[in-house]
Amino acid sequence: MNMSKRIVGLTGGGSDGWDVFYKARKMVDDGVAVTELTIGEHDIRTDQSILDAMHRSASGGHTGYAMVPGTDSLRDAVAARLTARTGVHTTRNNVLITPGGQSALFASHHAVCDEGDVALYCDPYYATYPGTLRSVGAVPRAVPCLPENAFQPAFADIAAKSSGAKSLLVNSPNNPTGVVYTRETVEGIARACREYDMWCISDEVYDTQVWEGTHISPRTLEGMAERTLVVGSMSKSHAMTGSRVGWIVGPKDVIANLITLATHTTYGVPGYIQDAAVFALGEGLALEEKVGAPFRRRRAIGQAILAEQNVVGLVPSSGAMYMMLDMRATELTGEGFAEKLLDTHKIAVMPGESFGSSAAGHVRVAMTVDDDAFATALKTIVDFAKEIQP
Amino acid sequence: MNMSKRIVGLTGGGSDGWDVFYKARKMVDDGVAVTELTIGEHDIRTDQSILDAMHRSASGGHTGYAMVPGTDSLRDAVAARLTARTGVHTTRNNVLITPGGQSALFASHHAVCDEGDVALYCDPYYATYPGTLRSVGAVPRAVPCLPENAFQPAFADIAAKSSGAKSLLVNSPNNPTGVVYTRETVEGIARACREYDMWCISDEVYDTQVWEGTHISPRTLEGMAERTLVVGSMSKSHAMTGSRVGWIVGPKDVIANLITLATHTTYGVPGYIQDAAVFALGEGLALEEKVGAPFRRRRAIGQAILAEQNVVGLVPSSGAMYMMLDMRATELTGEGFAEKLLDTHKIAVMPGESFGSSAAGHVRVAMTVDDDAFATALKTIVDFAKEIQP
Repeated sequence: MNMSKRIVGLTGGGSDGWDVFYKARKMVDDGVAVTELTIGEHDIRTDQSILDAMHRSASGGHTGYAMVPGTDSLRDAVAARLTARTGVHTTRNNVLITPGGQSALFASHHAVCDEGDVALYCDPYYATYPGTLRSVGAVPRAVPCLPENAFQPAFADIAAKSSGAKSLLVNSPNNPTGVVYTRETVEGIARACREYDMWCISDEVYDTQVWEGTHISPRTLEGMAERTLVVGSMSKSHAMTGSRVGWIVGPKDVIANLITLATHTTYGVPGYIQDAAVFALGEGLALEEKVGAPFRRRRAIGQAILAEQNVVGLVPSSGAMYMMLDMRATELTGEGFAEKLLDTHKIAVMPGESFGSSAAGHVRVAMTVDDDAFATALKTIVDFAKEIQP
Repeated sequence: MNMSKRIVGLTGGGSDGWDVFYKARKMVDDGVAVTELTIGEHDIRTDQSILDAMHRSASGGHTGYAMVPGTDSLRDAVAARLTARTGVHTTRNNVLITPGGQSALFASHHAVCDEGDVALYCDPYYATYPGTLRSVGAVPRAVPCLPENAFQPAFADIAAKSSGAKSLLVNSPNNPTGVVYTRETVEGIARACREYDMWCISDEVYDTQVWEGTHISPRTLEGMAERTLVVGSMSKSHAMTGSRVGWIVGPKDVIANLITLATHTTYGVPGYIQDAAVFALGEGLALEEKVGAPFRRRRAIGQAILAEQNVVGLVPSSGAMYMMLDMRATELTGEGFAEKLLDTHKIAVMPGESFGSSAAGHVRVAMTVDDDAFATALKTIVDFAKEIQP
């Protein structure tokens, strides 16, 4: 029996560069002590106060179908949050609650791309991006963001790929690079979207994790609110990765159609999880800073270690949970270095090649182990790079 | 800014026949006492023991990303359940856990239909069906199931529409009719799928709610396991509608591709909800019967009331939470009768026309209020029909 061409071709074929990750996982399963710096998941769990709020809601009877667009209270809370953080007036009718950020990325592209439409994304990219575009039948086209430009997409880079494109997917603070887009970058994104009449899909799930500089949402720029869909989530900001609750913020008419799509693809998000999210957002900055603090600390630790040497380069890392290390002085690929590192020192990092061709020769380090283990691992990486450099 | 043609055209245009439903909801919001027999949602909440199991899991630390295919324990539990209930050997690799049955319906069609492919569904139909097919770019084509045949899809009815079709969506026990497909019906479905080389997508979310006869899954018939995707859910069987947890059971190679799709559209289901589902399934038949008992009781009450008259006809109702009443003796449309009933007696039922053209002149009654209120409402419907019949 033939499956759809779309699902069969979803990954685009070829190696996905995740061999090191799977090898490390297998070693862990086999009882080997591996320091895993691979996945963007906190080393803390969801705060107990949030889980208690969830249980109160469920035990109080919020176990039936929730409204498909999201509960009024969570939509209002997200709208208030966006208004406060960006200055763009946002109401309930600009918000759809989704079962996680990935679902929001999918639905956003569904709303703007038809079969065969070209959809742009920035390389290096979060692993699911090209497949997400293919899942709605779009044709993914990469905008290379070069290490020389600190992986920021410049206007000219985007414009060179924009002809005939329907949408542009951007992500700041960025996974995998840890880069926060500058004002100049965001203005270039907005200009490209306006000049080439593209939708902007802005993945802002790390917006609370900025260690240097300021997060600027493309939606705040002139003429952009009407063509921008912002993807947000409780996953990273509140260590609620497993709860699968996120949102899309955009123009009311798009949200109205996205509600119809949600009726046919998800039928809403558990009400008790939405109540837990309302509780968590109500805790304000204190909780978000508690969740982000370990990454802020470890970034400082990492910067201090890297400042003492000049073999391993550090991409200016200003946000999110990652550092992108330039290993090109070793004359190895990112994958080659990551494999050797795992074999000899039992440290697992992600090859830059896992995230596209622009980050070749780099490795991504997730700052998701405790401070001491992180410092030890980073020193080992530096020493190993020195040892093997030609 | 232009949205995708697919999302703009998702509902197919035209009235959706849900005016009575919305009017009733507005009356309730305005403080009017309305007996709502509209929506397929239990009048009980999720059992506290299930919610406590969920809280234990979450508080125990299962709050990070769960495995995208589903936890091993839930996949195993669903596989064991299908094996036990149907006799078809089913393993973890035949199972994808989804965030609810609607998501499973969407993903199943995504797996087998490309843009422009014809996808069949049976009319009368659950409200989301045609839009779900459109959401993957498929062209929905209805198979009329006539009241004369108790709304069962006969082989000839299906065959008449199968030329060039890629898939057939069936649903037994059926929403909206309450009909359970006979062996002859299921054999006709299987024959049509084999002869016209169609996938069978079998929505079996009411499989534990059979009051008369036996539920037969098309997957159990010869040559069908390789071409059938079974959609299941905890919603109806365990009163967990709001928890959004369901599954697809099918051939291993399809499930493997569906896992890839899930990585790009949902990124899994909360681990603590999956643990709650494992707990609930582990409670066995006793809990399922507790959840189903009110509908079994009310169906008997309804049958007794309808047996005493011959104005309102009852479609042989053998399962699920619904009775489909034939109001054609009143010479009103289902919509006309439902409107008059709401206006004069403050009872809300769903017009058959909400579920397609085959159920015109009928109304669907959800058995989702307490026994006394249900008996009173049904008697009122009968008396009103007698009063207004020409």
